[in-house]
Amino acid sequence: MSVSRAIAGLEAAVGGEHEAVAAMLAEGLARVEERFDRQLNSDLPPVRALVEHVERYRGKMLRPVMTLLCGLAQRGPSATAADLTEAHVTVGAVVEMIHVATLVHDDVLDEAETRRRAQTVNNLRGNEVAVILGDYLISSAFHLCSSLDAQTTALLIGGVTTRLCEGELLQLHHRDDFSLDEATYFEIVQRKTAELIGAACELGAAYSGAAPATRQRLRDFGMRLGVAFQIQDDLLDLTGEERVVGKSVGKDLEKGKLTLPLIHHLGRADATTRGRTLRLIGAGEPARQRLTVDSRAVRDALESTGSVEFARDTARRLVREARSLLSDTLPASPAADLLHAVAEAVVARAY
Amino acid sequence: MSVSRAIAGLEAAVGGEHEAVAAMLAEGLARVEERFDRQLNSDLPPVRALVEHVERYRGKMLRPVMTLLCGLAQRGPSATAADLTEAHVTVGAVVEMIHVATLVHDDVLDEAETRRRAQTVNNLRGNEVAVILGDYLISSAFHLCSSLDAQTTALLIGGVTTRLCEGELLQLHHRDDFSLDEATYFEIVQRKTAELIGAACELGAAYSGAAPATRQRLRDFGMRLGVAFQIQDDLLDLTGEERVVGKSVGKDLEKGKLTLPLIHHLGRADATTRGRTLRLIGAGEPARQRLTVDSRAVRDALESTGSVEFARDTARRLVREARSLLSDTLPASPAADLLHAVAEAVVARAY
Repeated sequence: MSVSRAIAGLEAAVGGEHEAVAAMLAEGLARVEERFDRQLNSDLPPVRALVEHVERYRGKMLRPVMTLLCGLAQRGPSATAADLTEAHVTVGAVVEMIHVATLVHDDVLDEAETRRRAQTVNNLRGNEVAVILGDYLISSAFHLCSSLDAQTTALLIGGVTTRLCEGELLQLHHRDDFSLDEATYFEIVQRKTAELIGAACELGAAYSGAAPATRQRLRDFGMRLGVAFQIQDDLLDLTGEERVVGKSVGKDLEKGKLTLPLIHHLGRADATTRGRTLRLIGAGEPARQRLTVDSRAVRDALESTGSVEFARDTARRLVREARSLLSDTLPASPAADLLHAVAEAVVARAY
Repeated sequence: MSVSRAIAGLEAAVGGEHEAVAAMLAEGLARVEERFDRQLNSDLPPVRALVEHVERYRGKMLRPVMTLLCGLAQRGPSATAADLTEAHVTVGAVVEMIHVATLVHDDVLDEAETRRRAQTVNNLRGNEVAVILGDYLISSAFHLCSSLDAQTTALLIGGVTTRLCEGELLQLHHRDDFSLDEATYFEIVQRKTAELIGAACELGAAYSGAAPATRQRLRDFGMRLGVAFQIQDDLLDLTGEERVVGKSVGKDLEKGKLTLPLIHHLGRADATTRGRTLRLIGAGEPARQRLTVDSRAVRDALESTGSVEFARDTARRLVREARSLLSDTLPASPAADLLHAVAEAVVARAY
């Protein structure tokens, strides 16, 4: 189901001549899901029940998609399904598992109630279960990662997840910091979101025999996409509707988490407007009272300084940079075309 | 400081003729602390500040002590400081880091306020920070583990931490289950506490060239000690004083977490006593009201069925079994003597 969901948009985007590579990707994702489920097949029924719940969180499977497509694209136009090795599948399952673990813990942090139209674990079973379930997913990801032939991938993934946590801690440190600047925002996003997507791309190519320079460039490709992806996520939280997005929205403001549009607005607005916006978002008030934030008025304020458009443009620019990096690195191929389509989908998506 | 604290008890227990090996252990623990600190030396000041706080949690350093002593004991009477390799030090830092991560997340689960006489992270900085800091420690442990020469240790540690989380999830599943049986209690304790201590012992010997059979027996040695250690912990939570124990006590009952003495009592007491005890511990009441539990009266009830003594005897029996396993596996040596002393200290300790 999540496979078809991952593919659907792409096939539409690239048309029928890419059916063959789309089929390879679909088959690869099915193997990733199978590996994911097998790794989490606990002998304890209560644990299995929790895992079955979070498996609903799997949606776009962006990270494994990047691993598999980079793996195929590295092989060039003649790539076949056989080019997706067990290592590609394992890496795909590892990066998805780490991602799902961060979702489970993020929902605890955000006190979110819904995720992919399902109740969050914290909402359903309490924070304690959500905390340990997240730990279980992180451990399982590292356990699976250690089954790979070489130590190097585990070392790379360990560094990425460590910086991911540092990014989250930096973000928490700047909670309710209404003078947060763009540089720090990007520092946070690079670590908490972009690095894992960069690793997903790099490792996909690496297991198809990419040279160090190519690995590095595909990592940069993935990191630019990752930042664009996060900006789009932040925009959806600010301007999206829960019904469409499929998860709780408005959480960033409620939690005193400043994102790019607001940072841009507060930096550009005149003193009066700035003061009005700060009152509007309940700056200095306890988080509880922020539940009453008038999101319509906030959006109008942001529009007054073109800050939503600024954030959209920034994301679009990053996608353009990522795509030209890709074109300069890998030969034209159906898989490369799909990667370009994924890149566009990152900023076009409404969920 | 924590080194001297880890050693002090042991030197007293084994006397002066063990000064040489105690000095090797002290030097090894200093290297472990150095590795621990270097691995967590983030480039982000707010992250470093949090790490400095949790470094206070380091107390007995039981797990690295087991790794280093098993590493020395495997070498026999002629062991020297040179027998403690970089790998022993890395494993020691990894198992301690995983342990500290579990402490940070356990404090979130238990809403504990103090730990080793310091404020808990959740109490000081909130649950969000405590959750991500725990994740950061887990990631850092795996990252460090991946720096070892072989994949096998990361694979072993990944399996252990995964089962550790399963044990915690099983425990949460049985929260407020006042008919929890001994078999399930031991299932929980084996996974959440014993396996990591077993791995600490096994790996210490493995990096000193132990044969598979010896590794297995030292793993069993460590696991028996681990179960005894947890029973002692449960007894301290039930009967200890915060001033002596150095962390919040009475948390298990408050959280509806049944431990061995109470399980034994409820299994042995007649219907009237059983009903009285259940009312006493607020069975069926919301956790909040359990803050008023009369711990004196609970202890009297437990004494009436000899349940505290039963738990103490069980822990002592496990320590005896562990010690005879050790004697049958490794040659007599000063390091082996220290391992026997540690085993005794596990059930003798008041903190």
